[in-house]
Amino acid sequence: MPIEVIAFDADDTLWDNETIYVEAQTQFKQLLVHYHSPEWIDKHLYQTEMRNLAHFGYGIKSFALSMIETAVELTDGQITGADIQKIIDITKAMLAADVELLDHVADTLASLKDTYTLMVITKGDLRDQEDKIARSGLASYFRYVEIVSEKTPDSYAAILRRYSIEPEQFLMIGNSLRSDILPVLELGASAVYVPHHLTWVHETGDASAIEQPGYFEIEHVGLLPELLTQMES
Amino acid sequence: MPIEVIAFDADDTLWDNETIYVEAQTQFKQLLVHYHSPEWIDKHLYQTEMRNLAHFGYGIKSFALSMIETAVELTDGQITGADIQKIIDITKAMLAADVELLDHVADTLASLKDTYTLMVITKGDLRDQEDKIARSGLASYFRYVEIVSEKTPDSYAAILRRYSIEPEQFLMIGNSLRSDILPVLELGASAVYVPHHLTWVHETGDASAIEQPGYFEIEHVGLLPELLTQMES
Repeated sequence: MPIEVIAFDADDTLWDNETIYVEAQTQFKQLLVHYHSPEWIDKHLYQTEMRNLAHFGYGIKSFALSMIETAVELTDGQITGADIQKIIDITKAMLAADVELLDHVADTLASLKDTYTLMVITKGDLRDQEDKIARSGLASYFRYVEIVSEKTPDSYAAILRRYSIEPEQFLMIGNSLRSDILPVLELGASAVYVPHHLTWVHETGDASAIEQPGYFEIEHVGLLPELLTQMES
Repeated sequence: MPIEVIAFDADDTLWDNETIYVEAQTQFKQLLVHYHSPEWIDKHLYQTEMRNLAHFGYGIKSFALSMIETAVELTDGQITGADIQKIIDITKAMLAADVELLDHVADTLASLKDTYTLMVITKGDLRDQEDKIARSGLASYFRYVEIVSEKTPDSYAAILRRYSIEPEQFLMIGNSLRSDILPVLELGASAVYVPHHLTWVHETGDASAIEQPGYFEIEHVGLLPELLTQMES
C-alpha cells in the first residue's frame, strides 16, 4: 500500500525551536552568573523541568515557571524581583520570536502537496503552536493540523483513526526519535528521522529504531522527495 | 431539523473551575497583604492578565505568570524568593485540584448519551483540560473532545465542518455568554446558557444574546432533558 499521508513534526523539523530555548537559557545563566557555574545551572534547570513535566507539560510557559523555580532555588531565595521580571520578559520574547523555517522546507512542501495529503502533528502549547503555524506561512500546505499533549503510540493511533488512515499509508517526519519515530514504528507505520543540529536531551531516544522496518533517515528535509521515489520503486 | 449533537463547555459547566481561581487569588492576596489592599491587588492582577492574554493565552500557567508579574510590580521588586516559590506552589495545587462535578451533570449526561451525540468543546491549556476530562470520570459519555485556544464563530465553524454537523443540528451548553453562547448563535445554531454562581468577568458577554433566536437559558444542567423535550415538541 503506497504512502498517502505525510505528517511533519513542527519544532526543529519545519522551523528552528531549540535555538530559541538555548538562547533563553544563555540569558538565564547570565542572570545567575554570580551564584553558580553555567554547568550547575543547566543541570538544575533540567532537573526542575523534568520534575515539573507532570505538573506543567511542555512548552514555553512551563519552561518559564521552571526557570523561575530554579532561580529561587539556586539563589536560596535571594533572587530579586527585577531578575524575576527579566525571566518573564525572556519568556515573552521567546513567544514572540520569529518563525525561522529550516532549509528546503517550503520548497519540499510545495513539491509534495499535490501528490500527498500533508499534515502537522506537533506537541506543546496549543496557542503557541497555532500561532507559529499561522506565522510560518506554511498553513496552506497542510490539510490537517493536530496539536497533542504527548506523542505516544495511542495519540498517533487516535489521529489515524480520526482520519481513517491505515498505518501502511502513513509516513511521519521528525527530529525526535522518542516522539516522532519510535511510537510511529510501533504502530507499523513508517517514519523518517531528520536529525536537527540541536535536539533537547529529553527528546533523544534509543537508537533501536534504526533496526526496525519502516525506519528511514535523511540529512535534511529537502531529500524527502527523492526518498519517496525510492520507497515507491 | 432536530438537535443531534449537544456540546458542553467544561470549566464551570461540567465542573467547578472558577472556585479554584478564586481560592488561589485569595492566597495570592494574603502574600501581598502588607503592600496593598485586596481590591488594589485584584484590579492590578486582572490588568496584568488582560495585558498578557495575547502573549500567554488562557489557563493556569498563564495565570501563574501573571500572578508573579503582578507580585513583582506591586512590591516594587521587593517580593522575596520564598513568596515567588509560594506562588508556584499555589499553581501546582491548582493543577492538581480535584475535579468537582457540578450538580446533576453525571445524571444528565447518562440520560442523554443514547439519544444524542455528546461532545466537549473547551478552551484553555491542552494538557490541563485533557487531564481534567480524564479525572472527571465523564470521558466515556463524550464521542468527541475539542480543546481550542479561543471560542470564536470561526473555531466553532471549523468543528462543525470537521464532523459534518449542520448548525441546525447543533446545541451548545455553557456558562459564558462571550465564549459559549454568542459565537454559536452567530452561526445559526442554538445555545443554552447555564449561569454559574462564579464567572470570570472576562467571560461575561453583553446581554444581547437573549434577544436572538436559538437562545435558551436554564438554571442548572439537570433541566436540560426537559428543555430538549420542549424544543422538540
